[in-house]
Amino acid sequence: MKAKIPVRTIERLTILCTILEKLDKDGVGHISSSELGIITGVQPNTIRKDINYIGQPGAEVGYNVKTLKDTIESGLGLKTHRKTCIVGLGELGATIINLPGFLGSNIKIEAAFDSSINRLETFDTNIPLFPAYRIEEIVRDMQIELGVLTVPPSAAQNVAEKLIHGGIKGILNFTPVVINVDDSKIAVRNIHMLEEFKILSALISFEE
Amino acid sequence: MKAKIPVRTIERLTILCTILEKLDKDGVGHISSSELGIITGVQPNTIRKDINYIGQPGAEVGYNVKTLKDTIESGLGLKTHRKTCIVGLGELGATIINLPGFLGSNIKIEAAFDSSINRLETFDTNIPLFPAYRIEEIVRDMQIELGVLTVPPSAAQNVAEKLIHGGIKGILNFTPVVINVDDSKIAVRNIHMLEEFKILSALISFEE
Repeated sequence: MKAKIPVRTIERLTILCTILEKLDKDGVGHISSSELGIITGVQPNTIRKDINYIGQPGAEVGYNVKTLKDTIESGLGLKTHRKTCIVGLGELGATIINLPGFLGSNIKIEAAFDSSINRLETFDTNIPLFPAYRIEEIVRDMQIELGVLTVPPSAAQNVAEKLIHGGIKGILNFTPVVINVDDSKIAVRNIHMLEEFKILSALISFEE
Repeated sequence: MKAKIPVRTIERLTILCTILEKLDKDGVGHISSSELGIITGVQPNTIRKDINYIGQPGAEVGYNVKTLKDTIESGLGLKTHRKTCIVGLGELGATIINLPGFLGSNIKIEAAFDSSINRLETFDTNIPLFPAYRIEEIVRDMQIELGVLTVPPSAAQNVAEKLIHGGIKGILNFTPVVINVDDSKIAVRNIHMLEEFKILSALISFEE
């Protein structure tokens, strides 16, 4: 196990890594924390502190883009391939399975589940599909590490528990439900898309 | 303009409000900050501080669920109807336009745009569709306040600027691009779905 890093730092470093990847592709060789601050919207001082967590010393004269990207990737374990499954092939699940960004990434969707046999028979994909009652067995046999919840809210907790019994390590929860899991063993990220609309609505009400 | 509240507080209060709405529907009349802490995963002390921002005094003996929900809704401006548009009718845009959660909410999708005339002609929806070159005009004429970016990354900045010229107040950015806007005037929320997978991957690497 690696030394703990604050979740907010992991979030910022992950996004920073994606930005560095793009800068590297664009041919940028060297960058300062001030320049990174402008691109990311994060205070340069925070950027330097975040980077210090994964060992690269804060550089007065800036960073080598490619070296920094590699350091973050290694430090966060982003070079590790992660087998992933999706539970729930409604519109959102179907969209995620087809996201082009997975191509060439270390996140590999290896299986998908739905409770509707009809949906499984008619859904067009190269990814192996299974009925929901096989979640625990398939996750264990295929050693899947990440699970995506795109099921109806009423099914969320039950499906999360099946994934966990199968040995899942992390859950990306798209349902509006707070799922109860043992935080010390299972990482959960919530993406509440409708909540984001409300948060945006609240933010602009403070500008009016 | 209302007094400023930290963004993290707005985030937590918005999600708390959704939870209170559900508790109220389930017939729960009264709740303590400790109980809310268990449901939300937020420290009770933080919950009390967040609630104090919108005026309800921290209660030793807990909160009336319905009153607290109403107080947060009013305090955050969540009772205000917000006209919303979606730019980009690819898979993700098409999924969002159909999200059932908008029904009965104060977020109303009133228009959608795409640069492909063919896409506009074949897309099946009751929501008015327009070609992308009309964004600025339509946003202004319809007084649309929120815009959803589900365009290809290369189009994100350009589309954001058109929305802003039309008078948009808030942008929900689903592209992996950091869009440059005047933060003092435009609220931006970023949902980087692929980044969330990476963050989850990083989080579990610290458990290994």
